[in-house]
Amino acid sequence: MAFNEVFQYSIVSALMDGVATHGIPIARVLEHGDHGLGTFRNMVGEMIVVESEVYQMKADGSVVHIDPETTITPFATVTRFRPTTTKKAAVSGKAGLEDLLNSMFPKARNHFLAVRMDGVFTKINVRTAGGQLKPREGMVDVCSRQTTHTFEAVKGTIVGFRCPEYVMGVNVAGDHFHFITEDRQRGGHILAFETDGDVEIGAAQLSNFHLELPSEDEEFNEATLKLQAQGIKKVEG
Amino acid sequence: MAFNEVFQYSIVSALMDGVATHGIPIARVLEHGDHGLGTFRNMVGEMIVVESEVYQMKADGSVVHIDPETTITPFATVTRFRPTTTKKAAVSGKAGLEDLLNSMFPKARNHFLAVRMDGVFTKINVRTAGGQLKPREGMVDVCSRQTTHTFEAVKGTIVGFRCPEYVMGVNVAGDHFHFITEDRQRGGHILAFETDGDVEIGAAQLSNFHLELPSEDEEFNEATLKLQAQGIKKVEG
Repeated sequence: MAFNEVFQYSIVSALMDGVATHGIPIARVLEHGDHGLGTFRNMVGEMIVVESEVYQMKADGSVVHIDPETTITPFATVTRFRPTTTKKAAVSGKAGLEDLLNSMFPKARNHFLAVRMDGVFTKINVRTAGGQLKPREGMVDVCSRQTTHTFEAVKGTIVGFRCPEYVMGVNVAGDHFHFITEDRQRGGHILAFETDGDVEIGAAQLSNFHLELPSEDEEFNEATLKLQAQGIKKVEG
Repeated sequence: MAFNEVFQYSIVSALMDGVATHGIPIARVLEHGDHGLGTFRNMVGEMIVVESEVYQMKADGSVVHIDPETTITPFATVTRFRPTTTKKAAVSGKAGLEDLLNSMFPKARNHFLAVRMDGVFTKINVRTAGGQLKPREGMVDVCSRQTTHTFEAVKGTIVGFRCPEYVMGVNVAGDHFHFITEDRQRGGHILAFETDGDVEIGAAQLSNFHLELPSEDEEFNEATLKLQAQGIKKVEG
């Protein structure tokens, strides 16, 4: 796949419906991208892909460096990331990052963005999903038991995407970011952050979206996959 | 692109918002598929792609064989079609075709289907959109002036797709079929049909979806692209 195109396996509505037993080896996902996020079988932990390295950020606070050949993902979004615009700027938090991306890409409302931000975080709140208690347990229930962690004065990297409104349900409309510390020991799905001083932002506008659906997957085939926009905003917003 | 994958340029919600001034040469679309449907600049007529040949079916009843190098499309969906299942059967009409596809592909509710049907139609009703009266005129308004034609005792081909519910707005959820006569002189977007005797159906289940968004297109960038599910069902159902 070319640089700066989105590759996605399965859809967010499938996770909402608890479709997370099967998937594809992460090595298959890495053929299409070196930067992204996702989850693992049974929604155990949060996935972050940084420079082709894959980490599982677990609810107990631990981070596991993943072997992509032997680990399966039921949902992931990646790109072969080559930032087209970079900026050194003060970013006060999630809303500040949103504003900055709007100013960096004024014509991207209906396109995708891939984003990376590196810096020192005075405070960052993340959540990690602990996983399903039973097959087909939906993401809202899984996330009702999510663990949250707050890290202070850590250096690290944000990886994520902005998706246009019209893919809500297929992916998450809006900004969706995961975080990992520079030492790769802590991280999760970002709820809020604060920075002090300049951070480095790199981003690219993406106009090609490739979706691979689960095949031969009874859970996926049987799911209703109705759009649960409020539920998605609650757990992924 | 491999056989039996979906390639799509732009999204149906863009047509709903009247984004139809610009696009890409149809030759670019044919690189990804030999079978499909779409529209032309300013929504003038209905597009059908049969075995890599492209036809514009116009509101005056005429059909034009298109030069793909010099003609632009603002929206098209194609696949490199290789039917995996074929059947000779009696098909009473649109509902009968829907039932037959359900029985041919019992596990495809959340996947795409590409469909072709060849036979003699005792009666077939089609519509053709005459085009926008002004830039950004939306598809509901364009189709409020659609022309309908009824052909009787014609031999011809149906080409189209079934899309899963969760891509409503990106494409058309459900069945979407265009028709052209064997002599390539008549056709349009199918409203209803009747057959008498067996027809030949070929179809394939598609698990990969590739979407290319318009880039450098101010109309697309400025459109709100809100989901108008009822409007889409009205004009494309």
